[in-house]
Amino acid sequence: MDEAEWFEKVLLDVEKGIYIEDWSISGEELDIGGGGWRIEKKRLHGGLSDGVDLLTVNNGRLSIVILPTRGMGIWKGEYMGMFLGWEPPVRSPIHPRHINLEARGGLGWLDGFNEMVVRCGLSSLGLPGMDVITDNTGRKKEVMLTLHGRIANIPAEAVKIQIGLRPPFNLEVEGIVYERSMFGSNLRLTSRITTALGSNSFTISDTVENLRGVPDEMQLLYHCNFGRPILEGGARLVAPIGKMAPRDPVAAEEIDSFDLFGPPQSGFVEKVYFMRLIADERGETLVALTNRRGDKAVSLRYHVKRLPCFTLWKNTAGLGGGYVVGLEPGTSFPNMKAFERMRGRVVLLKPGEKYHSSVTISVHLGSDEVQGVLERVEKIRNGAVPEVSRRPLEEFSPAR
Amino acid sequence: MDEAEWFEKVLLDVEKGIYIEDWSISGEELDIGGGGWRIEKKRLHGGLSDGVDLLTVNNGRLSIVILPTRGMGIWKGEYMGMFLGWEPPVRSPIHPRHINLEARGGLGWLDGFNEMVVRCGLSSLGLPGMDVITDNTGRKKEVMLTLHGRIANIPAEAVKIQIGLRPPFNLEVEGIVYERSMFGSNLRLTSRITTALGSNSFTISDTVENLRGVPDEMQLLYHCNFGRPILEGGARLVAPIGKMAPRDPVAAEEIDSFDLFGPPQSGFVEKVYFMRLIADERGETLVALTNRRGDKAVSLRYHVKRLPCFTLWKNTAGLGGGYVVGLEPGTSFPNMKAFERMRGRVVLLKPGEKYHSSVTISVHLGSDEVQGVLERVEKIRNGAVPEVSRRPLEEFSPAR
Amino acid sequence: MDEAEWFEKVLLDVEKGIYIEDWSISGEELDIGGGGWRIEKKRLHGGLSDGVDLLTVNNGRLSIVILPTRGMGIWKGEYMGMFLGWEPPVRSPIHPRHINLEARGGLGWLDGFNEMVVRCGLSSLGLPGMDVITDNTGRKKEVMLTLHGRIANIPAEAVKIQIGLRPPFNLEVEGIVYERSMFGSNLRLTSRITTALGSNSFTISDTVENLRGVPDEMQLLYHCNFGRPILEGGARLVAPIGKMAPRDPVAAEEIDSFDLFGPPQSGFVEKVYFMRLIADERGETLVALTNRRGDKAVSLRYHVKRLPCFTLWKNTAGLGGGYVVGLEPGTSFPNMKAFERMRGRVVLLKPGEKYHSSVTISVHLGSDEVQGVLERVEKIRNGAVPEVSRRPLEEFSPAR
Repeated sequence: MDEAEWFEKVLLDVEKGIYIEDWSISGEELDIGGGGWRIEKKRLHGGLSDGVDLLTVNNGRLSIVILPTRGMGIWKGEYMGMFLGWEPPVRSPIHPRHINLEARGGLGWLDGFNEMVVRCGLSSLGLPGMDVITDNTGRKKEVMLTLHGRIANIPAEAVKIQIGLRPPFNLEVEGIVYERSMFGSNLRLTSRITTALGSNSFTISDTVENLRGVPDEMQLLYHCNFGRPILEGGARLVAPIGKMAPRDPVAAEEIDSFDLFGPPQSGFVEKVYFMRLIADERGETLVALTNRRGDKAVSLRYHVKRLPCFTLWKNTAGLGGGYVVGLEPGTSFPNMKAFERMRGRVVLLKPGEKYHSSVTISVHLGSDEVQGVLERVEKIRNGAVPEVSRRPLEEFSPAR
Repeated sequence: MDEAEWFEKVLLDVEKGIYIEDWSISGEELDIGGGGWRIEKKRLHGGLSDGVDLLTVNNGRLSIVILPTRGMGIWKGEYMGMFLGWEPPVRSPIHPRHINLEARGGLGWLDGFNEMVVRCGLSSLGLPGMDVITDNTGRKKEVMLTLHGRIANIPAEAVKIQIGLRPPFNLEVEGIVYERSMFGSNLRLTSRITTALGSNSFTISDTVENLRGVPDEMQLLYHCNFGRPILEGGARLVAPIGKMAPRDPVAAEEIDSFDLFGPPQSGFVEKVYFMRLIADERGETLVALTNRRGDKAVSLRYHVKRLPCFTLWKNTAGLGGGYVVGLEPGTSFPNMKAFERMRGRVVLLKPGEKYHSSVTISVHLGSDEVQGVLERVEKIRNGAVPEVSRRPLEEFSPAR
Repeated sequence: MDEAEWFEKVLLDVEKGIYIEDWSISGEELDIGGGGWRIEKKRLHGGLSDGVDLLTVNNGRLSIVILPTRGMGIWKGEYMGMFLGWEPPVRSPIHPRHINLEARGGLGWLDGFNEMVVRCGLSSLGLPGMDVITDNTGRKKEVMLTLHGRIANIPAEAVKIQIGLRPPFNLEVEGIVYERSMFGSNLRLTSRITTALGSNSFTISDTVENLRGVPDEMQLLYHCNFGRPILEGGARLVAPIGKMAPRDPVAAEEIDSFDLFGPPQSGFVEKVYFMRLIADERGETLVALTNRRGDKAVSLRYHVKRLPCFTLWKNTAGLGGGYVVGLEPGTSFPNMKAFERMRGRVVLLKPGEKYHSSVTISVHLGSDEVQGVLERVEKIRNGAVPEVSRRPLEEFSPAR
């Protein structure tokens, strides 16, 4: 696209020494698309959030808060006054410097987990567990991989704003995050997060490139988390399921109501279901979470070839414990990496090879809109009967 | 109390976006209680202290330095020109971001330990060791609990100053610190630290609330540490002991002089004694550390029902190694949590339940004042003969 | 030296509350030595470098960038337009707060490793592995020592600039870094980094003092790393070798060309050689790395009594993996500390004892200059035939 068609602003570029602490732009200033939209960057101070950068993109109807400091995750959002996200025990964005991923047997990631959308990856994701790496002396070494990997706790090295000066007036944020180490992975995530003025959706479009001189593994999962008000007793998942199995015996117990969500329940133990979703002729699938009455919903649209594994995380715990459902398209299921590798679900990138994936998240208000998205899911399903295993499948889950 | 009777200032509130880097107020400005008092907030820069907030409360005679960034601990103090605290190897307040609690087999806490008063807790305290938690999948998982827990290395999320505008003109600092994680503890510590103008004492009054939807464990210990000039060869502990035992054989060797402190001695290995103290009719106990001549002392006053376990930590090492004695009232003894749980000394809080505890620390100068406090200890003892075990007790210490 | 002969500026002193964020001085301002030199201090913002202080010392011909925040390491340099250092996977200086030394089985150090000169030490260095320490209760405890120790990830507590006002117009930076913990090491590193106006060299002169009241161990190694343009296919090491052995079988395979470096090669596994170098009558040795044509070189000069172990690290990996050679004079070889202790190569410092060491790094451009330095190496060698072991030696390396 012609450069003149874009307004561009670099907010961060560590190598070039650019860092802007506070900044904003709005429709009033740029004089496009009316006055309702606004992009704002600020830095938090004090507590565990000290030094966290927040980037709020408000397209006039939909607003999301991006966290460059937490690997370009999306903290929360709002659509026409409705809150998007969940109410986690950890309330504020936690600076990665306060997160020790190795803590409590590799569960330290949970000390900072509170985003609406958080990426798991990039060199590993899933449950903590032992894996074998090659160390600097060329020898095999057993190391602990920590829960859900490192990317959510690595600050972006570069952040750029782009605003399209012609319809549809796209608001775009590009962030670059490196997961790299001497003798280790060298993966560059370039994430573009885009929304058009007045739109009910935003798209996360990611490219992961292997900058290493040797082939290397990559895993990526979008942990998309929603609580009230869309989630409530009677809310349900609507998805074009091809094949499905519970992760473990606990999930198997409730296989008949896997797609129905209860009210907050203290002491609820998470139930996880692994699925393959059906795609349309363009390779896209669509999955939705709707409230009980069917007048509030959120949907995810993405290419199943890029993100072939869909995980449903039911965690309808009491409000203090995080009442939340996770919709998780990924390159893998969130088992231990060693298991996913064995099942052929870990991506191998050649030197310089790039992996593209994107997820579009849309919000639907009113029965008509919600009905519309459910019909689109049905159209993709096209009458197929899902292959549902009532027990964990060897293909999907390790034996417990 | 009527709001008009208080001057109030919020210095930090992460959720509301309030953070004041430098601030002070004094008797000259507020025109109460004469001109000698002052409260000052500043932020340190550089080294391992970069980003640490210091809050100095000086009531005109007694001054203490509170560390909101280190869980509302109290770094050091001064009373009428006399230093309060100790001379630790680690000289400056260390930002928690530089502390890896997991380091060296769970001893990382020691890299930042230099406070006069530091809380141990809240979900665990004591020696590092393995314990069993329930992970997110509902399964039991063995994890390492690190020395003295997390609370001293979590920055406060909110800090507020309150100054009473009528006698006794209280200077109060309220800080809120959260120890919380997804699938883990969700404990809120609200700490009020209060001193009256011209007083020789300050009170730490803490409330710990379980914000989780399920019952959860809590441990809390006030590690109060004093070195020179109160500690010296010939200094001694005066306490109304009900029952006492050495922690281990090393401490047992010096049981006959457990309450007497020697001069700094390089290579001294810590000796620890566990005690139950006697309380007065209101449930309060009083314990004092006096210098050799009995003209300098510090005392702790608190309710034994709230803090039933008293630990004496003798560490009269050479000056470079930290010449210090710890007076440690707690809900537990600082053994591994698993042992304390087995002995019924770990607090269980129901959802929403609060635990209150407070400690008043007073400084006494001159023989008359010191004599007075020792007499108050004797009055509480009321002639009781302490039950002293010359060997470690199964009730108090694990077998070694 | 008379104080009047020096210009002095304190940039950081945590205990005194001094921290200067941005500062510079140049020949124009101080009016000595012509206009070409400059010292500049700045603080980086954003990404993993947020809060890192950079101190650039440019003597008019040679420029180096010192990292007070990373233990007074030297990030990179430039000599008459030629880059000094290497091209590591990790591009920017990483704040120690983002480094978890315990990660991946003790390899976390590699996440921040990108310096031209980085110190390994001080209480341990070398490969990660188990060692036995004495904990606070006086008992032996097995702990993991992490790769290359802590010193490179501890910010300096004090930094001072000194500029000589008379010839040779020395530019000096003094930094103080403490590696200390309660019940642990208490080592103070005082590092002076000096260069004279217009010189082709700089000297790192370090003093490590044991501030503990008891004897304590110390290890120190200067990991000096060079890549392009000095390193290239055909570059070689020129050193007055007394005795040498490969570290392991992998290195033994290429023993005949240990001193010759190949072009970047993806998948290259590091090869390491351990050496004793010969010194001249003053106890100094000299070792050089030259490019293929012999018109670009870098040399290290130091006292072998202070740094008796020389390690050559060949890591001529593909460019994305870090094409680099390390010249590493040290008190030890970088094996696990337990092995080095067994071989008598761990320094023991008495209370208050100091250990001095220094390394002078010079850059040589043009065939004449390079020829000159090679001749000085030959003069030190003085015809001695190196004792080369074709297999790992028990004296130098643990059995694999």
